[in-house]
Amino acid sequence: MPKKRRMVILTEGQLNVFRAKTAVSVMRYLPQEVCCVLDGVATGQHLPSLVGVGEGIPIVATLREALKFKPNTLLIGIAPVGGKLPAAWRRTLVRAMAAGLDIISGLHHFVGEDPVLARAAKKHRRRIWDVRSVPDEMECSKNVAKDLKCKRVLTVGTDANMGKMSVSLELTAEARRRGWDAEFIATGQTGMIISGAGICIDRTISDFTNGAIEREVVNRKRREILFIEGQGSIGHPAYSAVSLGLLHGCAPDGMILVHCPTRKVTTSVETPIAPLPLMVELHEKLAGLLCPSKVVGIALNTFGMKDAGARKAVAKAERETRLPASDVFRYGCGKLMDALEKHYRKKG
Amino acid sequence: MPKKRRMVILTEGQLNVFRAKTAVSVMRYLPQEVCCVLDGVATGQHLPSLVGVGEGIPIVATLREALKFKPNTLLIGIAPVGGKLPAAWRRTLVRAMAAGLDIISGLHHFVGEDPVLARAAKKHRRRIWDVRSVPDEMECSKNVAKDLKCKRVLTVGTDANMGKMSVSLELTAEARRRGWDAEFIATGQTGMIISGAGICIDRTISDFTNGAIEREVVNRKRREILFIEGQGSIGHPAYSAVSLGLLHGCAPDGMILVHCPTRKVTTSVETPIAPLPLMVELHEKLAGLLCPSKVVGIALNTFGMKDAGARKAVAKAERETRLPASDVFRYGCGKLMDALEKHYRKKG
Repeated sequence: MPKKRRMVILTEGQLNVFRAKTAVSVMRYLPQEVCCVLDGVATGQHLPSLVGVGEGIPIVATLREALKFKPNTLLIGIAPVGGKLPAAWRRTLVRAMAAGLDIISGLHHFVGEDPVLARAAKKHRRRIWDVRSVPDEMECSKNVAKDLKCKRVLTVGTDANMGKMSVSLELTAEARRRGWDAEFIATGQTGMIISGAGICIDRTISDFTNGAIEREVVNRKRREILFIEGQGSIGHPAYSAVSLGLLHGCAPDGMILVHCPTRKVTTSVETPIAPLPLMVELHEKLAGLLCPSKVVGIALNTFGMKDAGARKAVAKAERETRLPASDVFRYGCGKLMDALEKHYRKKG
Repeated sequence: MPKKRRMVILTEGQLNVFRAKTAVSVMRYLPQEVCCVLDGVATGQHLPSLVGVGEGIPIVATLREALKFKPNTLLIGIAPVGGKLPAAWRRTLVRAMAAGLDIISGLHHFVGEDPVLARAAKKHRRRIWDVRSVPDEMECSKNVAKDLKCKRVLTVGTDANMGKMSVSLELTAEARRRGWDAEFIATGQTGMIISGAGICIDRTISDFTNGAIEREVVNRKRREILFIEGQGSIGHPAYSAVSLGLLHGCAPDGMILVHCPTRKVTTSVETPIAPLPLMVELHEKLAGLLCPSKVVGIALNTFGMKDAGARKAVAKAERETRLPASDVFRYGCGKLMDALEKHYRKKG
């Protein structure tokens, strides 16, 4: 990818906060890299009113209009229904490459394996980055992360899809503001597009899941502190393999447990969410099989709650776990970063 | 595969109990399906003296000699060094297919994707079964195994490579002897060759690991009791993703914890093995996030210990866990099957 990306985000008719999760997160965390959104249906509308972010970013109807903003990259910001690439999109992508744009895609269906698009990329010497594709050469974990000098903070959760990526990004920014040499490690497609690196951990072969995140950590061992994006939950019926592989592969010495107080059952596959104290205990005992680890604080996602309710939820979480709790978007990261700094001072 | 297999096992120079694990297990559990072993180096030697099993099975030097036993299948019983198929083997496999034999391979490198061998299979209308290959069409778990009527017994372990497959096979046989409609579910290559079905769970994409074993269980829901082959350990630094995916995907209502008293650190990646009571507790709590489950007994692998030492180890495990313990090879399966029957009578 070019050093300085200038992205057109293609959302073609699916620009809402649920379907366009990647587009929304990229606009939140990298607004300076987004030139415009390409969406024939939403043209002319006000992005913040539609999705809560994107102030000042225009929505255009055609690639020709988008090119006026001198982009160098086209990001596919959504997943087409059925997972296949619609013919109209293929034409847009070919024309974008002909106009000098690289392509970034988080689709399950790899754009680089589409013969037409692969040929166009070769012809126009453009790069296609299929974010979900993982390297062929994988290895089993050698259990070395635990011995690294860098501190490793993993966000874990009581469920999937609750904001673990955002909490890790916010903590990374807060740590940097406080003078730490901090880096975020992405483990999912959106985090990877935002940070430009990482591994899509849920696409790895299960035998190599632990090893895949270990490699990411080892590659950044010279940092002072790493914030690793968590995935799923050890209590989620569908994703627990991913979550435990991540937990053991990066061997965190500190964990932040993310929880959504309004959610009673896990997402997509409904199972009762275990009480916070049990989730704290299980994470500490499982991580502890490899190296001593501690849940240092609770990050609550109080989205949609009124302020009084949110404050009550924070107090309840603190009472139940005897750990500091906060919502990093509502109240900022200070409390959790304070807790992490205290934890590491104590650890030495 | 033909209904009744008559196998030549190719071990070519690697016929020992460590390298030829697949060959040895197949001879132990399916001696009636093995015609001969093809190994130019070990020709004429006595199999039981070499690997502890295989009484009455001849070792021959050439495919021509092997064909005298009227085989219909050639099983590759080992992994070549480096993972690639040596040219000499390729010739043997082509000649075997020309002579009417199907091929079974547990290699990482898929035989069916070798152009020469794929062509030969087509020409001679032979089947190549790459046991490690997993279906493309995978799904996330829907958390339905817990609601099935069939009982589900998973072997779990304090480490990898301790005999979980064998314990599951022995318990399946014992349950059948007692009149249960029991089936074994293989989750690794050797178990799959022995049972003719299953899924190589450590080759699945981590997002689909839980779902892959769930499908195997659902497909056998009409059985009275299923014995699911465990893999790795939730405490193994490299394989824990596989182990938790398996645990949650099959949602066992009974578990047998396999342990090797002489082993102090995990295999291949050395980490201290946690005490038995902690492993019992963690398995029950993790499984319990989805549905109530219990470790019902401890299966010790006392291989290489003297009888007095083995008896002491059994007594120690029982004292520590307050659960019945045994070595199913040394003392038979009765005690553990008694414990399972008692558990299910209590559960109703």
